[in-house]
Amino acid sequence: MNYGIVAKVLGDLLRLEAASMLPSLFIALYYQQHDTTAFFWSIAITGGIGWLLSRFSPGSQKIRAHEGLAIVACGWLLVSLFGALPFILSDSVPTIADAIFETVSGFTTTGATALKDVEVLPRGIVFWRSFTHWMGGMGILVFTVALLPTLGVGGFQLYKAETTGPVAGKITPRIKDTAKVLYVTYSIITLVQVVLLCLGGMSLFDSLVHTFGSVGTGGFSSRNKSMGAFNSIYLQLVVGVFMVICGANFSLYVDAARGKWKQLINNEEFRLYLGIITVATVLIGLNIAGAYEHFGLALKDAFFQVGSIITTTGYSTVDFDLWPAFSKGILVLLMLIGGSAGSTAGGIKVIRVLSLSKLIKREVAKIFHPRAYVPVKVDKKVVSDDTLISITSFLVLYLLLLTLGTIVISLEGVDLETALTSVITTLSNVGPGLRLVGPAQNFSFYSSASKLLFSLFMLMGRLELFTMVALLSPRDWRQTTV
Amino acid sequence: MNYGIVAKVLGDLLRLEAASMLPSLFIALYYQQHDTTAFFWSIAITGGIGWLLSRFSPGSQKIRAHEGLAIVACGWLLVSLFGALPFILSDSVPTIADAIFETVSGFTTTGATALKDVEVLPRGIVFWRSFTHWMGGMGILVFTVALLPTLGVGGFQLYKAETTGPVAGKITPRIKDTAKVLYVTYSIITLVQVVLLCLGGMSLFDSLVHTFGSVGTGGFSSRNKSMGAFNSIYLQLVVGVFMVICGANFSLYVDAARGKWKQLINNEEFRLYLGIITVATVLIGLNIAGAYEHFGLALKDAFFQVGSIITTTGYSTVDFDLWPAFSKGILVLLMLIGGSAGSTAGGIKVIRVLSLSKLIKREVAKIFHPRAYVPVKVDKKVVSDDTLISITSFLVLYLLLLTLGTIVISLEGVDLETALTSVITTLSNVGPGLRLVGPAQNFSFYSSASKLLFSLFMLMGRLELFTMVALLSPRDWRQTTV
Repeated sequence: MNYGIVAKVLGDLLRLEAASMLPSLFIALYYQQHDTTAFFWSIAITGGIGWLLSRFSPGSQKIRAHEGLAIVACGWLLVSLFGALPFILSDSVPTIADAIFETVSGFTTTGATALKDVEVLPRGIVFWRSFTHWMGGMGILVFTVALLPTLGVGGFQLYKAETTGPVAGKITPRIKDTAKVLYVTYSIITLVQVVLLCLGGMSLFDSLVHTFGSVGTGGFSSRNKSMGAFNSIYLQLVVGVFMVICGANFSLYVDAARGKWKQLINNEEFRLYLGIITVATVLIGLNIAGAYEHFGLALKDAFFQVGSIITTTGYSTVDFDLWPAFSKGILVLLMLIGGSAGSTAGGIKVIRVLSLSKLIKREVAKIFHPRAYVPVKVDKKVVSDDTLISITSFLVLYLLLLTLGTIVISLEGVDLETALTSVITTLSNVGPGLRLVGPAQNFSFYSSASKLLFSLFMLMGRLELFTMVALLSPRDWRQTTV
Repeated sequence: MNYGIVAKVLGDLLRLEAASMLPSLFIALYYQQHDTTAFFWSIAITGGIGWLLSRFSPGSQKIRAHEGLAIVACGWLLVSLFGALPFILSDSVPTIADAIFETVSGFTTTGATALKDVEVLPRGIVFWRSFTHWMGGMGILVFTVALLPTLGVGGFQLYKAETTGPVAGKITPRIKDTAKVLYVTYSIITLVQVVLLCLGGMSLFDSLVHTFGSVGTGGFSSRNKSMGAFNSIYLQLVVGVFMVICGANFSLYVDAARGKWKQLINNEEFRLYLGIITVATVLIGLNIAGAYEHFGLALKDAFFQVGSIITTTGYSTVDFDLWPAFSKGILVLLMLIGGSAGSTAGGIKVIRVLSLSKLIKREVAKIFHPRAYVPVKVDKKVVSDDTLISITSFLVLYLLLLTLGTIVISLEGVDLETALTSVITTLSNVGPGLRLVGPAQNFSFYSSASKLLFSLFMLMGRLELFTMVALLSPRDWRQTTV
C-alpha cells in the first residue's frame, strides 16, 4: 500500500471540503446568526488538517485497486466526520452521532434527518446541510478525480468506484474531461432550476436549498413539511421534474447536448425509467384519487412522490405514510429500484433491474429450449455472464444487508415495517420511510448506535455496497458496453 | 406435444388420488359423521374421470420437456381441483375458492388455512386435509414417477421438475429405484413419529394428523391452537425434531442408512442448515426469555418455532406474532431461507443460500484480486457459472413475485406487514405469517380472488417457481455434483 499517495489525496479532499464551507460562512455572516464562529473554526480545522495531510510525499503517483479502495473508504469517512463539525460547534444537534448521521445523510444525498425541527436552525447550518447534497451528488471524489490529474495523479480506480452504477463507459474516456463535462452539465441544471424556482416566487435561499436537494437527489429541505410547505403547483412540479431529470444517466444529456438525441431516446434504461415512473404515477394516482377534489391534483402528488422516491430524493408534498397500503407498497418497491446508473440517485438502479428482468426472460425461455444459448442484451450489446453474476451478487448482498439490518434495527423495539423501511431508505439513499420514519417523522428517536449503523448503510448504499460492484466489475461492463 | 401421454399420466394420477381418499372414507365410516357420502362421491368422480383420461393411447412413450412441464402443471391443477371435492361436498367450507385454497395448501404442504375453526369439522375431512400433506410431501408426482416405469413410461423430466431443490443427483440414478428408496425412507420416518407421539399419550388420530403435518412439513393441525393445544414438552419436542429431520435432504439419510455417515456429517448444506437452526434458536430464546419462568422453556418454544418455520411447516406452540420484532424478523428471514434441497420443505432452500453466500465471498475477494479466478465450491465440487446464474435468477424471480404479490395483495386494504408475510408464507409454503395472518389467525378474511392468487403462489413455490429452476437447471447441477 502506497500510504503517501493516500494521505496526499485525502489531504486535498479535506482542503476542498474546507473551501466548500466558505459559502455557508458567508451566509452565516450575512444573516448574523450564532453559527458564524462554528463555520470559522470548522474551516480552520478541516483546512489545517487537510494541509498537513497533503504535505505527505507520495512515493509513486500510481493508484492501484488497494489505494483506490482506501481513498474512497477513508475519504467518505473523513469528509463525513469533518463535515459534521459545523453541526457540533453550532450546537445544532443533541449528540455527535446525530451530527455524523446528518452529515453522512447529506453527503450520500440520502436526506434522512435526525432533526426534529429544521426551521429553528441558523441559516448557515441549513445551507451547509443542503450544500453537502450538492457536493455529494456528483460525488466529492469525482471532484477529486477532476483535481487529481492536475496534481499529476491518475485516478482511474477512483472514478470507477465513485460513479453511481455500473454503466460508466459511455462518457468521454479521459477522466479529467469526463469530470469536467459532468461538472458543467450539473452546474447548468442547477442554475436553471434555481432560476425557475425564483421565478415561481420562492426566495433565493429556499431556491438554492431545494435545488441542491433536487439535483443531488438528496431531499433536505429548509422546511419541516418539506415541499408541502410550498403551496404552489408550479414550484412542486419544477422540483418534481428536476428530480426526475437528475435520476437519469447524465452522460445521456452530454450526448444529447452534442446532438446525439437518438442515444437518449433509444436508451433502454432511460425508457424503462420513464416507463416505471409513468405506470407508478397512474396506479398511485388512481389509488389515492378518492381523497382529492380533482384527479389532476391526485396525479400531481402521485407524480411528485413517485419522482421523489424512485430518484431516491425523498421530498414530499403530503404525508404519503397515510396513503393506502397499495400506494405505499409501490413506493417501497421504487425505493428498492432507485434511479439510473450514472445519475445522482441511489438504490439498486434501473439498469440492474433491466438486466435482471432480461435474465429472467432468458431462463424461462430455457425451459422449452434447454440447449439454446440466448444471450442477454442491453442496448443491443451482449451482457456477459460475468457481468450478470456481478449484478445478481450485488442484489444478493443488498438483500443480505437489508434483512440482517432490519433484524438488528428491530432490537430498538420498533415494528418491522419501521425497521424494514428505515434500512431500505438508508441503503437506497432515499430519506423517509414508513410509520415511525415516515415523511412527517424523523430518525431522532433512534439510539446513537443505530444512527451510526444507518450512517454506515448510507455510505454502503452510496458506494454501491462497499464499492464492490462499482470498483471492480466495471471491467466486465467495459468489455460489453464501450 | 404428445397429448396422448399427457392425458394418460394425468389419468393415472387422478386414479391414484381417488385411491388416496379411501383411508379418509374409512375414517368417515368409523366416526359416523356427515362426511361419508362426500368421500364416496369424491372417489367416484375423481376415479371415474381418471379412468377416462387413462384410456388415452399415447402415440409415443417418450416424455420430453414440453410434456413434462404440461404434466407437472396440469397435474397439480387437477389434483388440487379434485382434491377439493370432499371439502365442497361435505359443506366444510363457505366457498369453492376456500376449498381450492385449502387443498392446494395441503398438497403443497403449506398449511395455511382459510378455516376459522377446524375442531368443528368431521374427522374424515380433518384426516383428508392432513393426508394431502403426506401425499404432497414427497410430491404426488414422485409417486407417479414410481408408477410410471411400471406403465412403461420414462419420467426423467418429471422427476427433475418435482424434486424440491436443485440437488437431486445424489440419490440412486435410476428414477424408479430413487422413488422407491425415498418412499421407504419417508414411510419409516412416518411410522417412527406416529409411534413416538402415541407413546407420549397423543391419540392415534391426532398422532397421524400431526405426523402427516411434520414429515410433509405441512402444518395442518386438528386443533385451532396447533401444537399449542398439546401441553406436553415431550410431544412438542418430538414434533419439533421430526420437522427438522424432514427439512434436511432425504438422500443423506439414504446414504447414512447405507453406512455412509460421513456424507451426512460433512455435507455443507446440512451443516449450514443445523447451524442456522442453532443460532436462530439461541437468539430468539434470549430475546423472549423475559416472558418465561425458565430459560429452558423459552429455548424450547424458540427451537420449536425455528424448526417449524425454517422447514416451512408452520406449526406453533405459542402465538409468535406477539413476540418482539427482533424474533419476528428472524422468523421472516427463516421463511425466506426455507429447508434443504431434496426435502419436503419449501422456501429458497439452504443450498441456494450457501451458494449465494460463497458467491458474495468470491465477489468481495475480487476487489483485491480482480484478475484471479476463484471458483465457487460446494462440497468440494465447483459450481459452474451457469448454475450460479440459475440460482440467482431463481432468487430474482422469487423477489419479483414477492414484491409484486405484496403490492397486489395490499389492494385488499390490509397493512403492508400482513400483505408481505401473506405472500412470503405462501410462496415459501410455510403457512402462518404475521399480524392478520399470524399463527392465531387464518386466511379466511381474504377475498376469493386473493385466495386463488395465494393458491397460485403456493403452487409456484412448490414447483420451484413454475418448475423453472428445477425442471431445467438440474442439467447444470448434474454436471457438478454427481
